[in-house]
Amino acid sequence: MNFKAEMEQRVSKIEQILQEYLPKEEGFQENIMSAMNYSITAGGKRIRPMLMMETYQLFGGKSKVIEPFMAAMEMIHTYSLVHDDLPAMDNDEYRRGRKTTHIVYGHAMGILAGDALLNYAFETAFRAFDMEENKGIPKALQVLAGKAGIYGMIGGQVVDVEAVGKPLERERLDFIYRLKTGALIEASMMIGAILAGASEKQVEQVRSAAADIGLAFQIQDDILDVTSTTEVLGKPVFSDEKNNKTTYVTFEGLEASAKDVEGLSKHAIETVNGFHGEKEFLVELIQYLIHREK
Amino acid sequence: MNFKAEMEQRVSKIEQILQEYLPKEEGFQENIMSAMNYSITAGGKRIRPMLMMETYQLFGGKSKVIEPFMAAMEMIHTYSLVHDDLPAMDNDEYRRGRKTTHIVYGHAMGILAGDALLNYAFETAFRAFDMEENKGIPKALQVLAGKAGIYGMIGGQVVDVEAVGKPLERERLDFIYRLKTGALIEASMMIGAILAGASEKQVEQVRSAAADIGLAFQIQDDILDVTSTTEVLGKPVFSDEKNNKTTYVTFEGLEASAKDVEGLSKHAIETVNGFHGEKEFLVELIQYLIHREK
Repeated sequence: MNFKAEMEQRVSKIEQILQEYLPKEEGFQENIMSAMNYSITAGGKRIRPMLMMETYQLFGGKSKVIEPFMAAMEMIHTYSLVHDDLPAMDNDEYRRGRKTTHIVYGHAMGILAGDALLNYAFETAFRAFDMEENKGIPKALQVLAGKAGIYGMIGGQVVDVEAVGKPLERERLDFIYRLKTGALIEASMMIGAILAGASEKQVEQVRSAAADIGLAFQIQDDILDVTSTTEVLGKPVFSDEKNNKTTYVTFEGLEASAKDVEGLSKHAIETVNGFHGEKEFLVELIQYLIHREK
Repeated sequence: MNFKAEMEQRVSKIEQILQEYLPKEEGFQENIMSAMNYSITAGGKRIRPMLMMETYQLFGGKSKVIEPFMAAMEMIHTYSLVHDDLPAMDNDEYRRGRKTTHIVYGHAMGILAGDALLNYAFETAFRAFDMEENKGIPKALQVLAGKAGIYGMIGGQVVDVEAVGKPLERERLDFIYRLKTGALIEASMMIGAILAGASEKQVEQVRSAAADIGLAFQIQDDILDVTSTTEVLGKPVFSDEKNNKTTYVTFEGLEASAKDVEGLSKHAIETVNGFHGEKEFLVELIQYLIHREK
């Protein structure tokens, strides 16, 4: 099977898991379930649960205990987008060609749907306790919450919001890249490794590879903004320049940025290749994520 | 020691625990920690952690494992207030005489501070795993998330938001009262019982007593709005009437409402009196909460 077909197979498996864990739309409060489900089913590449599943299998994980964590991770990613789109934040009316949650359900429900998804992510992850005795669950939960919070994604988001319209130092840019996108990628791969019983040292190696993937992904984003076309990218190019946004390319230039993507990618793949399990698809996935053209 | 002195002693113990678990204000993202701490230290009666601690001790709990859960509960209560105050929700500029979080830190940070508090509540509760082997922790976490989410507090909040400006049926009013305030009171007392090793039957009895306390508390609120004075209450009276708000008093009238408060209070106290542990202060606390004059 080629990469695209394998990817589609995995996405469809993840959609099925998400369906299983999404709340039923019922009761007086059914509108909030509807808003949550609308947000989650808006599509997206499902990269985080995919990386989690692949890393879990890489370390020999075979049970369904990973599934509530996969669903929880996608719920956390989704809540962050729902709140990001709010008028007080990015004020976006469309995402992936669909109206954003607060446009469809109203502003108050946009806030509440985000809250509900974050809370439900933990409710969902806690279902792992009823599935099997797995000594990794407490640690996996700590990683999930830690990487999603003020020392992870929210921390990056805060610094990003505060940086709007101001010149950005290199240190602060690195901080945003490492936390805003990187933290959930790290958590996804770490949780996969932890629940499969990987050693502390292995979990740290996985974290380091995931950090490289997250950073390379971001730099590639900055590169595409100046090298791609609106047609290929599906969104306006040169948007960073228009918005006076300091990016990795601003500091390093195009050539060095492209070299850094190569270096980060190489390190991540070498790390993954150093483990003994089934890793063929994971390596292809990393290459795809980093070298994508849109 | 009289009730007031005992209460103050407990509040000061809870403040100390909160201080211990609040995040340090440091790093590029220190503004979010500052907004979280501002919100939490705005005061409040600390009823939920107090009920949790008292119920824990009632069932013989003696360790510090309850403390991260007490802090987590207050963080969840606080995040709900921060988001409630936002312009798209109640649009309140003041709470307890202090400017609300989004007024001081800006609208975007108001959203993010609420998100951060909810996420940090779970990070905090997860610290219990590092404190002792306690078989109740998974169940306590499930109760915490369950009662805070769409089948608990958020569910009640959603139905309340949607009811604004519309006539409200009795069933829907009961739903809001049971979930919006009741759910976190239930969770607080249940978690205390669970972590102290109470039986399933006892936890269910505690839940039922807590539900009565939450409902009686709400009805008393409705009663005070028509029987108190602005001076005693510290906020305008007859506000429900002015806002065309359907309350318990609308359906039952004053006399029957007062009788219901008595009945609920009696049942809750009888339940607590049926347990064998130290319960003197808890009974006084319940009486105080229900029969308060402001």
